[in-house]
Amino acid sequence: MATQDRLIESTQELLWERGYVGTSPKAIQQRAGVGQGSMYHHFTGKPDLAATALRRSAEQMRAIAAADLAAPGTAYDRIAAYLLRDRDVLRGCRIGRMAQDPDVIADPQLRAPVEETFDWLRGRIAELIAEGQAAGELTMGVDPADTAAAVVAVVQGGYVLARAAGRAEPFDQAVRGALGLLAAQRTVDRTA
Amino acid sequence: MATQDRLIESTQELLWERGYVGTSPKAIQQRAGVGQGSMYHHFTGKPDLAATALRRSAEQMRAIAAADLAAPGTAYDRIAAYLLRDRDVLRGCRIGRMAQDPDVIADPQLRAPVEETFDWLRGRIAELIAEGQAAGELTMGVDPADTAAAVVAVVQGGYVLARAAGRAEPFDQAVRGALGLLAAQRTVDRTA
Repeated sequence: MATQDRLIESTQELLWERGYVGTSPKAIQQRAGVGQGSMYHHFTGKPDLAATALRRSAEQMRAIAAADLAAPGTAYDRIAAYLLRDRDVLRGCRIGRMAQDPDVIADPQLRAPVEETFDWLRGRIAELIAEGQAAGELTMGVDPADTAAAVVAVVQGGYVLARAAGRAEPFDQAVRGALGLLAAQRTVDRTA
Repeated sequence: MATQDRLIESTQELLWERGYVGTSPKAIQQRAGVGQGSMYHHFTGKPDLAATALRRSAEQMRAIAAADLAAPGTAYDRIAAYLLRDRDVLRGCRIGRMAQDPDVIADPQLRAPVEETFDWLRGRIAELIAEGQAAGELTMGVDPADTAAAVVAVVQGGYVLARAAGRAEPFDQAVRGALGLLAAQRTVDRTA
């Protein structure tokens, strides 16, 4: 792998594990196995490298979520595919965890990929819910944008509950809870 | 205020703002306006002081949530009181944000108050939902424990979405979404 890519990948991993505040330029260089001079040859500094790494993580997360939400079946099935995807729950979300980092939130360059990823995700799920309502698959009883925000929040909050508990179960519970509430919005009972 | 209390309060604030990894003993001493010797007179070190501060934050959060969940009205009303409480959304949750901190999660002493707070909160909301179902106020269509986990996750994930966006609106959307889904579980339409 090229030096530049090794630096970006190492930064992606460290940001996921330790956050921005907890990731030093030295730790990045050590994980990438490159010297200080090489890092500053490719990037102006930690903010520049972190912004590049975050943009790449955001693209990867978006591609995975887009595939889930394009699964076969109804709007409910697609949202279920997103919610039930196999996850390394205790690792948390590589994008969501950035929102806790005060230095990320304070820097427009670093916050942008985090904001854009969630904007896109909420918009895509809202679209699916609106399509399901228009097709008569889902009741008109809920607001698509609000419901989509709740679905995305359940996943992000599920990570928080699981990490707090040191086990994946609370994440799975939250997802089952969201699916139970969403299932009640279906106009036809498909459990039979 | 006594020196010991000043140290605890300053640590509570800094943990909320900067997390555990981002809070240095020096920053705590500066905010509390006490010297290093005084800090180490009262506490063995940062982990000891942080554990005390986190236990106090957990007690405070629990007291506030318990009051919301004892609001007048039905189970739905009480959960709505919890979800709709006026919050400084962009500050995030003082307990939930700790779950992103790898050093908190790795230390049983630091993780315990975080885990216990969410266990209690999920349990209390599950109890309310089960009571609402037993009283015929809510349908039997959802599992109380799973639904409670989803409710708590919506709040924690709502903070993530709001901080990512740099504005409170995505939190409010997620909460409205959860309330819309919960409202559909009521056996009697109270919106009329």
